[in-house]
Amino acid sequence: MKLSNGLPILDWGRRYRGALFAEDAMAALIVTIMLIPQSLAYALLAGLPPEMGLYASILPLIAYTIFGTSKALAVGPVAVVSLMTAAAIGALGLPPALAIAAAIALAFLSGVMLVALGVLRLGFLANFLSHPVISGFITASGVIIAASQVKHILGVEAGGATLIDVLLSLARAAPDVNWATALIGVSVLAFLFWVRGGLQPLLMRLGLKKRAAGLLTKAGPAFAVIATTLAAWFWSLDAQGVALVGSVPNSLPPLTVSTLLEIEPSLWRDLAGPALLISIVGFAESVSVAQTLAAKKRQQIVPDQELIGLGAANVAASVSGGYPVTGGFARSVVNFDAGAATPAAGGFTALGILLVTVFLTPLLFFLPKATLAATIIVAVLSLVDFSVLGKTWRYSKADFAAVAATILLTLTLGVEVGVSAGVLLSVGLYLFKTSRPHIAEVGRIDGTEHYRNIKRYSVLTEPSIVSLRVDESLYFANARYLEEYVLNRVVGDPAIRHVILACPAINEIDYSALESLEAVNSRLEALGVRLHLSEVKGPVMDRLKRSSFLDELTGEIFLSHHQAVTELSGAAAPSAPSAIAREDGAAA
Amino acid sequence: MKLSNGLPILDWGRRYRGALFAEDAMAALIVTIMLIPQSLAYALLAGLPPEMGLYASILPLIAYTIFGTSKALAVGPVAVVSLMTAAAIGALGLPPALAIAAAIALAFLSGVMLVALGVLRLGFLANFLSHPVISGFITASGVIIAASQVKHILGVEAGGATLIDVLLSLARAAPDVNWATALIGVSVLAFLFWVRGGLQPLLMRLGLKKRAAGLLTKAGPAFAVIATTLAAWFWSLDAQGVALVGSVPNSLPPLTVSTLLEIEPSLWRDLAGPALLISIVGFAESVSVAQTLAAKKRQQIVPDQELIGLGAANVAASVSGGYPVTGGFARSVVNFDAGAATPAAGGFTALGILLVTVFLTPLLFFLPKATLAATIIVAVLSLVDFSVLGKTWRYSKADFAAVAATILLTLTLGVEVGVSAGVLLSVGLYLFKTSRPHIAEVGRIDGTEHYRNIKRYSVLTEPSIVSLRVDESLYFANARYLEEYVLNRVVGDPAIRHVILACPAINEIDYSALESLEAVNSRLEALGVRLHLSEVKGPVMDRLKRSSFLDELTGEIFLSHHQAVTELSGAAAPSAPSAIAREDGAAA
Repeated sequence: MKLSNGLPILDWGRRYRGALFAEDAMAALIVTIMLIPQSLAYALLAGLPPEMGLYASILPLIAYTIFGTSKALAVGPVAVVSLMTAAAIGALGLPPALAIAAAIALAFLSGVMLVALGVLRLGFLANFLSHPVISGFITASGVIIAASQVKHILGVEAGGATLIDVLLSLARAAPDVNWATALIGVSVLAFLFWVRGGLQPLLMRLGLKKRAAGLLTKAGPAFAVIATTLAAWFWSLDAQGVALVGSVPNSLPPLTVSTLLEIEPSLWRDLAGPALLISIVGFAESVSVAQTLAAKKRQQIVPDQELIGLGAANVAASVSGGYPVTGGFARSVVNFDAGAATPAAGGFTALGILLVTVFLTPLLFFLPKATLAATIIVAVLSLVDFSVLGKTWRYSKADFAAVAATILLTLTLGVEVGVSAGVLLSVGLYLFKTSRPHIAEVGRIDGTEHYRNIKRYSVLTEPSIVSLRVDESLYFANARYLEEYVLNRVVGDPAIRHVILACPAINEIDYSALESLEAVNSRLEALGVRLHLSEVKGPVMDRLKRSSFLDELTGEIFLSHHQAVTELSGAAAPSAPSAIAREDGAAA
Repeated sequence: MKLSNGLPILDWGRRYRGALFAEDAMAALIVTIMLIPQSLAYALLAGLPPEMGLYASILPLIAYTIFGTSKALAVGPVAVVSLMTAAAIGALGLPPALAIAAAIALAFLSGVMLVALGVLRLGFLANFLSHPVISGFITASGVIIAASQVKHILGVEAGGATLIDVLLSLARAAPDVNWATALIGVSVLAFLFWVRGGLQPLLMRLGLKKRAAGLLTKAGPAFAVIATTLAAWFWSLDAQGVALVGSVPNSLPPLTVSTLLEIEPSLWRDLAGPALLISIVGFAESVSVAQTLAAKKRQQIVPDQELIGLGAANVAASVSGGYPVTGGFARSVVNFDAGAATPAAGGFTALGILLVTVFLTPLLFFLPKATLAATIIVAVLSLVDFSVLGKTWRYSKADFAAVAATILLTLTLGVEVGVSAGVLLSVGLYLFKTSRPHIAEVGRIDGTEHYRNIKRYSVLTEPSIVSLRVDESLYFANARYLEEYVLNRVVGDPAIRHVILACPAINEIDYSALESLEAVNSRLEALGVRLHLSEVKGPVMDRLKRSSFLDELTGEIFLSHHQAVTELSGAAAPSAPSAIAREDGAAA
């Protein structure tokens, strides 16, 4: 991958042609139609004025077009990041004007952090969000988001950062339900669910190709927006108490550098933690979408450059009145299906949203908030997937614990606690597992040179030889475990003269483990037992040669385990072959 | 190990005989003589009245005798834990009476935590203190402790929790040096260094056996105590400004349950973190001494029971006017060498210290503090070992980084920051290493069935087959790395038809890695490339069978890598043998 000094646009831009333009422009048109209601809706979800969603869909897309590497990723406001923004700002209890400034600051911090991670090549940090934690987090977030939108569907006042808070608040507000709002909300919900499930087959029966039918169904929310806006205007539904989007400024995105400059140091400090979480969660979501789509066309993305692209997009959001953005799943798939050929499609989408922002915002005045809430609910419920609980339960209890804890804590204590606890728990469980490695005592399968676990197979053993296969790299957390295991095995059995550690699965021996092996060696020596190693890997052997362990070792290093057992059990051929083996001991 | 319901004393007590008593009593006498100056000195190091060191050497030893499993461990005040106590209490800035209460509370908290860890079988947590971190921490602590005692040697007022603070404070106080004190301090220092280095060879030349000579040199500090006490009394050195221990209460240890009951909740909260660190560091130090000594006699210790033994000792310290205790290195070695045969030796030592506390404390009035400081300096400098820096540098840069950071941060920011940062850094570096596993592309060594790294060996490969050996278990932190590695390898090379992952070093595949393998499988499928696995271990295979991966896999599972390459390169024998291989695919 040549990336022309971190500016991927110089690569693909040079080869840009008219045919690509047509493809990109068509994709951009479709994504723009999808993005208008989404950007308004997600801004409301984040607790911000709707125009901030539009602003977050202009300059950030252009920044990503310049710095990003995915040809299909559609950047902009997304549900989970909007929810995290709402949680971060809500926790501070700020007045509305300061809340807007805080959202802008959050985008700036998140952008700077992403760029820094990219420049320092720390993109791998996102890998510590395990798949179960991400699934659990997104599922729980989807539930919270859907619940948080019910108030707009019912036309009541409610709130809360956790599921329980939201539900309690809704229960208290239920008597105040506005029936006109509820009629619109429920109708749009029913319509959108039908579009999602039934429209595409219908269109295909009417003769449309599958791809065209699929894209047309994505315009469902746009159709609902137009229909309910007209209805609200025609019947003056605001007089019935239906909450409308109302007047949205009719202008270019504002320059908000001065907003950033006026923010207090204490607010920056309060936002740093949430910004880091938003960055990492947003990046993890975005990069997996980008990779999935790139792989379909044998293309590649460059994760560290993606960090810079997303970081630039967030900095761009922060200087143009937006809030944190990332690559969205559904929107990127639509962009891909609609034929986006280069990142320019994102730039054209930005142009589309810019035209809407400058010229068409008056048309949004009569748009009912219930319509937007319905589009959010339908979108996020498609992300809710509790099946991961069953799958992980069957596959691995540790992974199940990580998913279950993430879901439970996200629902009950909020998104930040949920995702942090999920990461800590999965790292902790991994460390716990590796701290008690699987150690198998092995014996020879009769008639072969294969050695297998004596508990799983009927095998031959020698009373004077203990063969142990350690199925884990040796490092500080399991070094003492091995020490105890070996000594406990040997202490009670005076027939033992040799212990052979079979090391084909040991990929590393760190300094603690080296000291433990030295301790095992000298303690076994005190008991008159020799310690041998077999099948030590090349890189491990290279390192052992740099220590004094091989000089102190009472036994030998054998190329194969069979060779070790044969030499140590038979009295013949005592030292010459093993001296060679020690030289070549680096198996594999 | 039968342990009679967590009371090891019931095991060895039943078989206790006169011969054992003689051995234990002799060991106890020698340890008592060594412990008197040590317990006074370490209490001063902890910033506490000297008698608290004596109190911490009575009831705690009896508690350990009842609950502990090591036959040689000598429990009581030790240097590192005393330093950590000083740091924990010093950080709170309490008046003297409250500082004493805080030390008692610290012992109680630490005791309860240790017992809880033992009951919950969480002793393995101490393994996360890697050897380099412990070495670095003890070395840096030794330097700080030695520096902190220089004020007593010079007879000046100074203080500080970090090396820099201590040195600056000493520099400021240097002009006030008390020459009589300095004379005593330097003389005792010189004497003790000579005892350590030159006395044993001298005694052996005079005809003593090595063991007797060795034990006699341990009485060096006791001799210095007697000589300087007599000198201070005879020449009334207190009139010359020499600081003396002064009047030490002449009584049984006080009952301090009421002190514990009167402690404020906020103080308990402030002490919880330091207590946890003291518990884990003390346990790690103690258990490694106990294991080393037990192994020499083919004995065993039970780490989780050790936690209970040490926990009981600390609770005992807290109800009898003591402060945190653990098993001491030098003292335990002396106990062992002097022939301690059962934990009863600790009980007899307690009796010895009790007699001193009740009858002999008036004799301590004229003991110069400079003498105690000199005994501390000589004791801790033997723990200082910077050679670990060189050893780890040669062996592994990651381990070097952990040692260096621990030493540097302990010296500059204090013991708590140092040890916490060391643990976090070593865990972080381990995770980082495993997140970028070694992946080798392998080929066949001509004339053999062995496959080796194409970068290290001259090997045969097939253009249509890529053989990759992954040298690490697959889990969330490296799953995406593997995904990218495989796809990057395949994307640019249209000749590739098969990818075989050789899995002999893969000890686990977690749920994230499973999903990554599924993603690799379907992305390769889109490129017309089949994915195969070879040499999958039994436990890994068991788990894969519980997922749908094996159904979706485009390729096959092979028992050996050679079989895989042979079948996939030759057109012959396409499916029947591999179907068998899939059944028996569980190699090892």
